This record gives sequence, structure tokens and C-alpha cells, in this order.
Amino acid sequence: MNTYTVSKLLTSEQFGQEVEIKGWVRTFRANRFIALNDGSTLNNIQCVVDFENTAEETLKRITTGAAVHIKGELVESQGKGQNVEIVVSSIEILGDSDPESYPIQPKKHSFEFLRENAHLRTRTNTFSAVMRLRSTLSFAIHKYFNDNGFYYMHTPIITGSDAEGAGEMFRITSLDAKNPPLNEAGEVDFKEDFFGKETNLTVSGQLEAETYAMSLGKVYTFGPTFRAENSNTSRHLSEFWMIEPEVAFMDLAGNMDLAEDFMKFVLKYVLDNNREDLEFLEKRLLDEEKTKPQAERSEMSLIEKLNFVIDNNFKRVSYTEAIDILKNSKPNKKKKFKYIIEEWGADLQSEHERFLVEKHFKCPVILFDYPANIKAFYMRLNEDGKTVRAMDILFPGIGEIVGGSQREERLEVLKEKMQALNIPEEELWWYLDLRKYGTAVHSGFGLGFERLVMFATGMTNIRDVIPFPRTPHNAEF
Amino acid sequence: MNTYTVSKLLTSEQFGQEVEIKGWVRTFRANRFIALNDGSTLNNIQCVVDFENTAEETLKRITTGAAVHIKGELVESQGKGQNVEIVVSSIEILGDSDPESYPIQPKKHSFEFLRENAHLRTRTNTFSAVMRLRSTLSFAIHKYFNDNGFYYMHTPIITGSDAEGAGEMFRITSLDAKNPPLNEAGEVDFKEDFFGKETNLTVSGQLEAETYAMSLGKVYTFGPTFRAENSNTSRHLSEFWMIEPEVAFMDLAGNMDLAEDFMKFVLKYVLDNNREDLEFLEKRLLDEEKTKPQAERSEMSLIEKLNFVIDNNFKRVSYTEAIDILKNSKPNKKKKFKYIIEEWGADLQSEHERFLVEKHFKCPVILFDYPANIKAFYMRLNEDGKTVRAMDILFPGIGEIVGGSQREERLEVLKEKMQALNIPEEELWWYLDLRKYGTAVHSGFGLGFERLVMFATGMTNIRDVIPFPRTPHNAEF
Repeated sequence: MNTYTVSKLLTSEQFGQEVEIKGWVRTFRANRFIALNDGSTLNNIQCVVDFENTAEETLKRITTGAAVHIKGELVESQGKGQNVEIVVSSIEILGDSDPESYPIQPKKHSFEFLRENAHLRTRTNTFSAVMRLRSTLSFAIHKYFNDNGFYYMHTPIITGSDAEGAGEMFRITSLDAKNPPLNEAGEVDFKEDFFGKETNLTVSGQLEAETYAMSLGKVYTFGPTFRAENSNTSRHLSEFWMIEPEVAFMDLAGNMDLAEDFMKFVLKYVLDNNREDLEFLEKRLLDEEKTKPQAERSEMSLIEKLNFVIDNNFKRVSYTEAIDILKNSKPNKKKKFKYIIEEWGADLQSEHERFLVEKHFKCPVILFDYPANIKAFYMRLNEDGKTVRAMDILFPGIGEIVGGSQREERLEVLKEKMQALNIPEEELWWYLDLRKYGTAVHSGFGLGFERLVMFATGMTNIRDVIPFPRTPHNAEF
Repeated sequence: MNTYTVSKLLTSEQFGQEVEIKGWVRTFRANRFIALNDGSTLNNIQCVVDFENTAEETLKRITTGAAVHIKGELVESQGKGQNVEIVVSSIEILGDSDPESYPIQPKKHSFEFLRENAHLRTRTNTFSAVMRLRSTLSFAIHKYFNDNGFYYMHTPIITGSDAEGAGEMFRITSLDAKNPPLNEAGEVDFKEDFFGKETNLTVSGQLEAETYAMSLGKVYTFGPTFRAENSNTSRHLSEFWMIEPEVAFMDLAGNMDLAEDFMKFVLKYVLDNNREDLEFLEKRLLDEEKTKPQAERSEMSLIEKLNFVIDNNFKRVSYTEAIDILKNSKPNKKKKFKYIIEEWGADLQSEHERFLVEKHFKCPVILFDYPANIKAFYMRLNEDGKTVRAMDILFPGIGEIVGGSQREERLEVLKEKMQALNIPEEELWWYLDLRKYGTAVHSGFGLGFERLVMFATGMTNIRDVIPFPRTPHNAEF
């Protein structure tokens, strides 16, 4: 293994030490200064080549993207912007990079171009910072739950149930695509398929997570989920990762406490651990915003936005109260909202959510007790008979980021709800069993991981926060 | 949230304290002693009911599986086997569990029966221990890589490439199952499908992980992978989780160092953190083995097996040397092996691998430099032109648990190999790009997560170490 990393060398003060480093050339200027990166940090280490004593042939091969093996002495840097640099005593070219054809030149590339080169885009500062942050966020999530007594659970990706109800599903099959076997009724005979029935890609692990919460107490999932919806927007992916904690004996208030504590922990964790990446992305965002008219610029910088979440109590507001606020709000009265709020029962849009967070309350907001008919079948019906114990957490710039609920734990009420929605009991016999045997209050929430990465990195297109995005008509790499 | 957990109460010494706990009744004996479990630990807390002052109606409802809310005083236990117990002052039944129909009775159930009730099986000691260990192993994996400067990477589940070559794939589609659109040639027109081409479920994230290793340096995946093979064995799943680290500038020797260090770390971690679960499973295994003839019993107990891995250096042996040893071994000469080793080039079976580990070397073994033609196309060809820099790690009782290699980093050699195997370059243009621009030595390995969980828990059927197993003709829950 590589003994040294750029990250370690940059914080070393062992001047005079002989060191060895392998990495990729980011830039080579004045035939002398290599900016070398190995992915361990955003920053490059400067390697100073003695061009007078280096073969011309070698110098020519020191090009952007080339992999090199450098030996030299670690010295205090004379230049500004870095503390240490390497005075190169030997350089070996491990892998060339033809400057004529190498796509990642040391200049600004459009994100669209980089998406087409998603296999190389982490060779840029922006995408390496984004993906390091994504990794840190993942670890923070596992650490939070592990430290708090939750068990990580892998819910199935292939599901035989189509009752999850969260969206359109992809079919998984091993049948002949052109001539599938038919049954006597002339329909495709899924009994002949691999799993002996029709199967799909999961849209949520929640229902399965509930089975484990009702025995292990506190569990969470963190896995891929899928939507076969033809949404070609900057906020939708066909394949994305989701975090879904589920806790027995926890009511909706506990669920809010958990979600708030969790979100603050993970964002604090990246602030503490990825400061350089965040500062780089913050600066990138500021530069980008300079090209926009003043009115469209964010009021907060990236790090301010993270601190806004960490430092503020999340304001808890009922849906009914929120509707009142929105109905009487200036943008509603002046018809500035695209969707005017006219009455109780309306589904809130991102513009309304952002108004509540950014203009009205000026802090993250948790809305709760939503109308039953705009929420999922498994949510706990309130005593009023028309609202359910649902909650959505709203963040600045993004609107809804977390959705959760207390679950309906009463067998008869759940059965009625399923009947009303034509969900057959046979489909979810095991889910109903949880209400038959030792049922109890329980709650959980779902967090779309890529939404969180967007929030923490300031990236505005969801395709830029996952390594190889899957969207309608796109499954490259 | 629940203020107390059984786990915390059992290690508390605050005798005389008023406590509150919610959980499920495991047993209720003598109308007096509730063994209460909440999933936070294998162990139950004993709750002593004052049956003379408790309504008959309530006592009747304290049945196995019922959810209860207990208040009482924490006292030093008089009975053996526990330090503390709760003298119940009030008990509320949260959810009944009808003893006539509840499937999980306080008796021994067959694993087959419990598989059919996979939604309830973590209510048993065995499965709660297995799933807690699974969770701890997951965390240990993330912790190891995070602590060692690796970035976690989510490689795509839906893949448009069928060149991964690790096995048969499931097709993912949104086309009409019965009447798919056809193109002019009369074939199914996958251009009309959701992604505009034929797509499958991934069999490995390695090739994509290589793209990130060649920019971020050290990365790993931990995600679901799939095989559409009709293998109905105790060692195969159609959906399983895999860990795949990939490291730039690391050769095969470094790969062995990494894998050995990693395996020791994660097994040590569960020994340190899940001792009670391991001791329970060890005892379970001993009891089970008593029913077997002496010759079929393991030589090592579960914890001995874990220590065998942690305490021994992994012996590194070339494939060629291993074949010599096997050819001249007693079981080969006496034809005790099911597959007799006759010549160099043979693919090793589990019986051979176990012989090397358990009888010959008596330590974990890393075999390396395998014949090229029994290994994957992307493995680095040795100078001899007939072996590749592959490695397999062999464990007692299980045989191969890790498979890895140094990757072919030379563009021309890789192209030749792909050509020989009819893998079109257009399919893997992005993979070839890694060899065109800044190529370097790099290596990685794959570890089937469920194999690791089997090893660490002593469970012998892979369906018993994943929450909801997917196998041919089975996608329940």
C-alpha cells in the first residue's frame, strides 16, 4: 500500500524527510511545478521538478491526468498557499495521459459534459469534494444509529409485493422478453418466472423495517430504492438511496425528536470532518451565483445554511396552522405562488414549504398532522378521523427533506384503510401480523440520501451527487 | 423515545430506582415471572408481578409475544442468572398476542418453519443474535474503511452493461410483459424501454469502483448484488450484499495485507462488541452438533474459529504450490476427495480449500497466482503468460470467503483479453479509458457479506443470515 498520502504529507512538519508519493498530475506549470493529487484530500501537493536534470522526454510526459511516482525531499514551501512541498529527486511516469484526447483538461467544464464523463469526473475538484462529502455523510449516518443503539437492517431490493404504494415500479424478470410463457387465460404466466411470481424493485424498505422494529426495537435501513416514473427533472432519480429508521414504542413526538437530532448530528459531522471540501463548494456556489440576478441568489452561503439547521430548533407546526399561515401570506394574496392555497386539504408545494422556512419562521420546520387522504395508508389516524400522524421536515432552499409518521398499530383500523384503498390483505398478511401479535405504537421516517447530499454540498442537480445516475433513457456505465 | 432499555437496566446498579420499560413478553411463568425482551440485548429482564393484586383479566393477557408497558422498582435479583429484576407496580397490556395462534411459541422451532415466518423470527434468541451480529459486522466494515481513509461509494444497481461477467443477470424492464414493442427485425425493441436499452441488475460494483479508485485513491462499495442462477443450495442467494474495496497504486501483496487486516479487524470487533450473542450462538451450535456423529462435528467452537482467524498469520501459498500439496495429499491418493486433483489448472473445490486450511496449514490461507483461464478477464496477467495475479482467501469450515486480484492496468493486454472473450470494447469504453489516462497498478477484492455473517454466527444456511432471503421461487415478504 501507498505509504504516504497527500493528505498526510500536507500536514507533516518533518522537513528534510525523504518521501515517496504516487498520484495524478493536476497541472504542470513552468516545466517545474507539479500539482499532484491522490484523492486523499481536495488539496494538491506541489512537487518541484529539477527540469535541468530531468530528461526532456520525461518532462513532456508530465501532463494533466498522468499517473506518476515521485521521490524527493519534503521541505517547507517558499510559495504561498501551502506549507510544504516536495523537491523531486526522481520521477517515474506510471501511466501517460495524452493531452490531446484527455477529456478532463485544467479548465472549467460544464456539469453536463462531466455527466457524460461520469467515470472521470471525480478527477475534478468539485466532484471529488462532492463524493468525499457523500462518503462522510454515509459514515455519519451509520455512526449516529450505531451509537444510539439502532441495528442496521438490509431490507430486500427485489420485492414480490406491489403494495408499498410509494410509486411506480420496475419489473424484474428472467422470462423470455419476446415470447413469455402464457397461462390458460392467455396472460403472462409469472408462475414460470424466476421467483414464481411477478417481482419488482423495491420503492421503500419501511414495511419490512417495521417487522424488525417490532422485535429488535430500533432499526434502520440504508439501501437503494427505485421509481419507474418518467420524471426528467433535476430532483428525480430512477435509482436512489434511502435511509429509513423505525422504532418501536416511539410516537410522533419522539419521531420528531429523533429526526431533528439525527439531521443535526450528520450535518455537524461533515462540518467537523470535511471543512476544506465544504469551503471549496461554498466558494464555487458563490462564484456561480454571481452570474445570477441579485433576487435569485441565496440569502445564505453553504456553510451558513448548514449552521442554520444545526443551530436552530426545528419549529413544529400543524398542517392546519401552516395552511392558515399560507392562506394569509403575502405571496398567496398577491398570487405570487404558482399554486395558490385556497383551502384545507391542499398538498403543499416546494414554494410553500420554502416560504414557511425561509420567510415566515426563519428556521427548519416540522409540519405534522396532515390530511389522511394525501398520505399513505399505513399512517396512524388521529382521533379527529381526518388527519394522520404524519410529519414532513422542511429545509431552506430545498423544502421537504424528511417524511415520516407514526404507524397505524390498530389491526381493525389498518384493515379498513387497506380495504378502502383496495390493498388485498393476502398481499400484506405479514404486515398485518405485526398488529395481531404484540402490536405497539411505533414510528419512523424516510430520508432520500441524495436530497441530503444536495443540501450539504449545494449542488443543484441530483445527477451530480450520485456516482452514476439512472434516469429515464440513461443507464450509462 | 423509550427512556430505558433492557440492556441498560441489566447493567444498572441503581437499586431502589423507579423504572419504566416497554417490551415483549418472552415467557410468563408461575403467574408471576415475566421474562421481558425489547431487542436491545439477547437477555431478558425478569419482571416480578404481584399476582395477588393484579386483575385476573390482566394476568391472562400476559402471554408470549404480548407487548407490555411495565412500571416498577429496580431491585437486586434473588434468583440466579441475573443481577437485577423489576418488582412490577403497574403493567399495561399494549398489544395482545393470542397464544392459540401466535406462531412463535416458547419452544424450539425448525429453521424451515421460521423462514416461513421471517417477519417474526427475530423474536427468537437465535435470529435476534444473528441479526444483531449482522448489524455489528456492517458497522465494523464501515468503520474499518472510514478509519483507514477509504471513501464509501454507491455503485449502480441497475446496469446497462452485461460485461461484468460474474454470472447470469435479472432483466429490469417497464415494457408490457405480454406484448413488448418489436423493432423492424422483429426483436424486442429495448430502445422503447425505460432506459432506452436493455438493463439488468448488477452482479458486481467492481468495474465502477475502479473508476473512483483511479481518482479518489481508496474506495469501497457495500451494496446489493444479484445472480439469476437457479441454485437452490444452502450457500446461494439470488440477492446478497457484497463489499468491494478498490485501491490505486496497490499491488497483489498490498491487497493481501489489506484483506487480512480487514478480516481480522471486523471479526475482532464483533468479539469485542457482541460477546453475549456469540456465546449464545456458540452454545446453540454445540447443542446442535451433539446430535451429529463425532466425525462430522467441528473441531473448533464458534469463538475458537473467530480467534483462529484473528490470531494466526494468513499463510500465502501460490496456486501451483497448493496443487502440489493437494496432489500428494492423503485424501487425494486415497480418493477421499469428491473431486480428485489430477493436474495443474484444476478449479479448487471447497473440500480442497478446507483441507489446506484445516488439515495442512492449520491457519487461514491466501492462494494466489491462479491459472488465467479459470479467472475473470480483468485480472493482471503475470509474466509467465499463463497465471494471473488473483487471490482467494480460505477460511476453516467454509473455504473461499474473499476473492480478489490486481487488475490488468495495461491497455493493450486488456484489449486482447476482451477480444479473446468477445467482450465488445464499446460496452466498456469507460473502463478502457482508465487505462488510457493515467493508468496505474491497482487492486481490490470482493467479500460476500452473507458468507462473512455465516462464518461469524456459525449458521449453516445462508437464508438464515439475511432478513428476507430471495432464492429461486421465493420472494415472500
